[in-house]
Amino acid sequence: MAVYTDVSGEDLAAFLADYDLGAMLSLKGIAEGVENSNYLLHTESGYFILTLYEKRVAEADLPFFIGLMQHLAARGLNCPLPVKNRLGDALGRLAGRPAAIVTYLDGMWPRRQNAKQCAAVGEADALLHIDGEGFALKRPNALSIEAWRPLYESAASRADSVQPGLAAFIEKELGWLEANWPRGLPEGVIHADLFPDNVFFLGEKLSGLIDFYFACNDAFAYDLAICVNAWCFEPDASFNITKGRAMIENYRRRRPLKAEEIDAFPALARGAAMRFLLTRLVDWLNVPPGALVKPKDPLEYFRKLRFHAQASSIRDYGADA
Amino acid sequence: MAVYTDVSGEDLAAFLADYDLGAMLSLKGIAEGVENSNYLLHTESGYFILTLYEKRVAEADLPFFIGLMQHLAARGLNCPLPVKNRLGDALGRLAGRPAAIVTYLDGMWPRRQNAKQCAAVGEADALLHIDGEGFALKRPNALSIEAWRPLYESAASRADSVQPGLAAFIEKELGWLEANWPRGLPEGVIHADLFPDNVFFLGEKLSGLIDFYFACNDAFAYDLAICVNAWCFEPDASFNITKGRAMIENYRRRRPLKAEEIDAFPALARGAAMRFLLTRLVDWLNVPPGALVKPKDPLEYFRKLRFHAQASSIRDYGADA
Repeated sequence: MAVYTDVSGEDLAAFLADYDLGAMLSLKGIAEGVENSNYLLHTESGYFILTLYEKRVAEADLPFFIGLMQHLAARGLNCPLPVKNRLGDALGRLAGRPAAIVTYLDGMWPRRQNAKQCAAVGEADALLHIDGEGFALKRPNALSIEAWRPLYESAASRADSVQPGLAAFIEKELGWLEANWPRGLPEGVIHADLFPDNVFFLGEKLSGLIDFYFACNDAFAYDLAICVNAWCFEPDASFNITKGRAMIENYRRRRPLKAEEIDAFPALARGAAMRFLLTRLVDWLNVPPGALVKPKDPLEYFRKLRFHAQASSIRDYGADA
Repeated sequence: MAVYTDVSGEDLAAFLADYDLGAMLSLKGIAEGVENSNYLLHTESGYFILTLYEKRVAEADLPFFIGLMQHLAARGLNCPLPVKNRLGDALGRLAGRPAAIVTYLDGMWPRRQNAKQCAAVGEADALLHIDGEGFALKRPNALSIEAWRPLYESAASRADSVQPGLAAFIEKELGWLEANWPRGLPEGVIHADLFPDNVFFLGEKLSGLIDFYFACNDAFAYDLAICVNAWCFEPDASFNITKGRAMIENYRRRRPLKAEEIDAFPALARGAAMRFLLTRLVDWLNVPPGALVKPKDPLEYFRKLRFHAQASSIRDYGADA
């Protein structure tokens, strides 16, 4: 739940004066997203999402995120389209924060994910990788393998307070990943955070993708591995091979995986689990007093990481090798 | 910020099947309100507010609140109108909670309140009192003077941790209020919580009132005294006599105050400040670990109460005696 910056009617009216959206009618804070402040904005032109970018998002990255949504929407991908003001800018300032208005996307994110939805996400992720081609800006993945050891070190002394033995487990896994991390795989623009709450469905049909604020340039198959982590485990941490197969094979229908991507998949899935284990662990250990956001359980990704550590082939995920 | 109960697409679809609102298109949690879970609901029929009533609201009171909004909307007051399902019911169950869909009201609540807005609120409060006539259901004010001493007693031992001397101050004020509380004043349906975040404006025009979940039967002038507390003080706790005059005199244009209401006004304002001081103090001292709602500062009402304690006439509020 997140509204960190309050916006007054006066400030909003001044901001909207630069847009061709008519008069403001209402603004309601949305209890979604943890990085930024999101509002539902109603103007005489319709409904929009107004985002105020908070400190966790680097201002220098905003042209990448905004430009990427414009690029993908122009290619026909269903994602929020940043609305330009009369000067042609989609990024402005409101209440002291960088701010953008994007189109409102219908759909609900699935609370209980089924195999059909996993198939649709696999396909959508492949289409995103294809549609990202030709996007001019670059953004390295700030949460890739080089970031993991510093994250671990910031949490190591207190990791065992979350679960005895966790520090040693991460230390060992990190060593393995650093020695075995796949390099030179096909790469391009990836979403990097395609969790269920970022994928909308209308009935059975995938209606759109949101929240591109972790998007970056990295290996395509690593993005798929993030999706498999986020969608294909059951609440008891058991891997659902039907969901895995549905997701990976539907990805391949749109963008076939190369041999080296297939070989690398278990290591990529292991790394993806490490990335979320570490960021969740750091957040868990650093909840500020009076926090408005509940931290997510890091141990969910400890359990997923253990599964990946014993996988030896993409077949262990239900897919054809 | 408040979304306590999550709603899945499946549950929502089943709930909406009883309504003539078409298919669901989206549902977004709203970061407003502290008592209930509120969602913005988009269906093929338009935009609505979906409220799930949480444990702080007594289920037995819901027919009063829902019926009152229907009654007031039918009289032409701009407030959310509960939407009936095909069986004629405006109250159902969703995700294990009582739930209602109400119409979406445009407007922004004013972050910085001016005298014109205070005038509009005074008028709207009088119209609400007039429009409430003939509403068949009754609900005693659960937070009137009889409730104050038990609230105080539950907080007394820790009150001085908020400010030294606070317990003795409240004890003395409570004694005065119990000895001098005005009785037998004209009464009827009051809103009882008409704070700025419950009053919407479009430009300078008041566009609607929301959040009737403290509404009850009590003295009309007490409701006006709550409004004066909520709207007519500056952030430094000084009373703004221009705002007070604007609010009270505009109330009287619609519903003239009787002599006994005028005489009682300082005591009513003093009691209203006590009510909010006490409930805020109890909330402040009982923030659950991991709370998603920031408690409001009780000392704001300590300072307001001190002002009222030295007022001797409605003239001290800018109004004509």
